[in-house]
Amino acid sequence: MLYLIGLGLGDVKDITVKGLEIVRQCSRVYLEAYTSILTVGKEALEEYYGRELLLADRDMVEQQADEILKGADVSDVAFLVVGDPFGATTHSDLVLRALNAGIQYRVIHNASIMNAVGCCGLQLYNFGETVSIVFWTDTWRPESFYDKIKKNRDMGLHTLCLLDTSAHLKIYEPPRYMTVAQAAEELLEILQNRRDRDTVCVGLARIGAEDQTIRSGTLQELASCDLGGPLHSMIISGHLHPLEVDMLKLFSGPERLKTLKMTDSSTYVS
Amino acid sequence: MLYLIGLGLGDVKDITVKGLEIVRQCSRVYLEAYTSILTVGKEALEEYYGRELLLADRDMVEQQADEILKGADVSDVAFLVVGDPFGATTHSDLVLRALNAGIQYRVIHNASIMNAVGCCGLQLYNFGETVSIVFWTDTWRPESFYDKIKKNRDMGLHTLCLLDTSAHLKIYEPPRYMTVAQAAEELLEILQNRRDRDTVCVGLARIGAEDQTIRSGTLQELASCDLGGPLHSMIISGHLHPLEVDMLKLFSGPERLKTLKMTDSSTYVS
Repeated sequence: MLYLIGLGLGDVKDITVKGLEIVRQCSRVYLEAYTSILTVGKEALEEYYGRELLLADRDMVEQQADEILKGADVSDVAFLVVGDPFGATTHSDLVLRALNAGIQYRVIHNASIMNAVGCCGLQLYNFGETVSIVFWTDTWRPESFYDKIKKNRDMGLHTLCLLDTSAHLKIYEPPRYMTVAQAAEELLEILQNRRDRDTVCVGLARIGAEDQTIRSGTLQELASCDLGGPLHSMIISGHLHPLEVDMLKLFSGPERLKTLKMTDSSTYVS
Repeated sequence: MLYLIGLGLGDVKDITVKGLEIVRQCSRVYLEAYTSILTVGKEALEEYYGRELLLADRDMVEQQADEILKGADVSDVAFLVVGDPFGATTHSDLVLRALNAGIQYRVIHNASIMNAVGCCGLQLYNFGETVSIVFWTDTWRPESFYDKIKKNRDMGLHTLCLLDTSAHLKIYEPPRYMTVAQAAEELLEILQNRRDRDTVCVGLARIGAEDQTIRSGTLQELASCDLGGPLHSMIISGHLHPLEVDMLKLFSGPERLKTLKMTDSSTYVS
C-alpha cells in the first residue's frame, strides 16, 4: 500500500493520529521536499516519528517514482507531504504510477494553505481561482496572474495568491521564498490606477505554526511590512461581508484600524 | 484560552496529535453539531478522547456564546469542529466574542472538504467560487447556484458544490442530507441544452473516511448512482488537464470509462 500522508502546516504534532500510526508501521517513509516546508526540519520529524525519512526531491518523484514504489505491493510505503497530499500535480502522477504497477494507495488528509487561509476571517466560499505570483527577473515579468485577480474581483471574489518558492527549482543556490512585501511590490508595479491601490489585502505568514502572522492592509502597507520567515501567501479581497471586515480589523495595523472601522463594507470594493 | 480545533473528515483518529493533546487538557470541550458530521458519533469521540463532550447546536453558538466562553480567560476551553474550524461564518462570530471578552484564541487546523476534494485528481488551483445546492420544495426552487457554476465554467474553472444538510435547521424531524443523485437531478431540471448535460461531474461521498466513494460521470449518470451514506458533495468540472482526465478515469463507471479514454480533454468542456 502507498500511503500519501499530509503533515499539515506547523510542526511535528500537526500530523493526524492516523497519519502518525501509519508512518510508524511503514517499511519506508519518504518526505516530499520541494512543494512546501514545515517550520521544523527533517531531523525534528525523524526524532518525533522515530523513523528515518528519505528525502524525495522533484527529480526523484517525477523520474524515479519506481524507486519510491518498490515493494509497495507487498509492504507499506509512506509518502509525506507538507499540507495536504493533493495540492500539487505531481502527486496525481505518483498515484497513477502506483495503480499501473498494481499498488493500492490511500490518502490521509490534513490542512493545507488552500483551506487554512480561512483563519483570517475571509469566507472560503467567496474565493475565486487561486493564482501564483512568481519572482520577476530583468527579462521575465509575467503579469497574467493579475488578470485572474481582476476577474475574481469583478465577481466580488477573494483571490488567494501563492507566492513563489524557488525551492522547487533545480538550482544550485539556497532556496528563496517570496515574501508578502515582495509580492505586494510586484502588484503595485502592475497596477496603474489609484482605486485598485486601496484594495484590502491580507498577508499571511507561517499559517498553522505557533508564530503565524496575519496582516491586513493596502498593497502599499503590505509592501513595507516584514512578516518574518517563510512561507508567505497573500489574499486580494473581493466583496467584503461585514463579519469579514470585523475579522480583518483584528489583523490591521494601528493606522489602518481607523479606516477599517467604517461599517460600510462596500467601501473596500473597487 | 479558546481553542478552535478541526477534527478532519473521517473518524476519531483524524484529529491531529496537537489537537488531541489540547482536548485532553481542557477544562470543557464542546462539539459543534450542526455544520457537518463525522462518520462516527459523539460517543466514539468521547471514548477515544477520554473526555465528556458538550454538544453545541446552532442556537447555542449564536445566542449563548457566553456560556461556551465562560471561564476561558482563566482556563482552557476547546470547541471542536468537523473539518476545519473556519469553514462556517458563525465561528468567526465566536472568535470576535471571545476577543471582546478579553479571551485569547488559537486555531488547530485540519482537512476540510474545501481542500480534501483534491483527492479526486482535479487541481485545487482550478476551482472557482464554491456553491451550495439546497433541497427544493414545491414553492421554493432557487436556481442562483447555477449561474455561479456557469460563470466558473465559462472561465474553465471547476465548481465544488456543497450539498444541503438540513441538519442545521431548527426543525423537529430527523436531519436530511442531500445525495449526489438528488443534486444531479436538480441540476438536470435547470439545464436545458444537451451540451451542458454531457459535462463531466464528480460525486464524492464520505471523503476522508475508510469507505469514501468517488464517482465521475455525466449528471445523468450521477443522478442514477447510489453513493451511500452522508456527507455527499459534487464537482462540476471546467477545463480538464490531461492528468486530471487520467485521475477521473479511476472513478468512472465501466460504461463511462470508454468515453473518458479519449485523449482530447477539451471534449469535456462545453
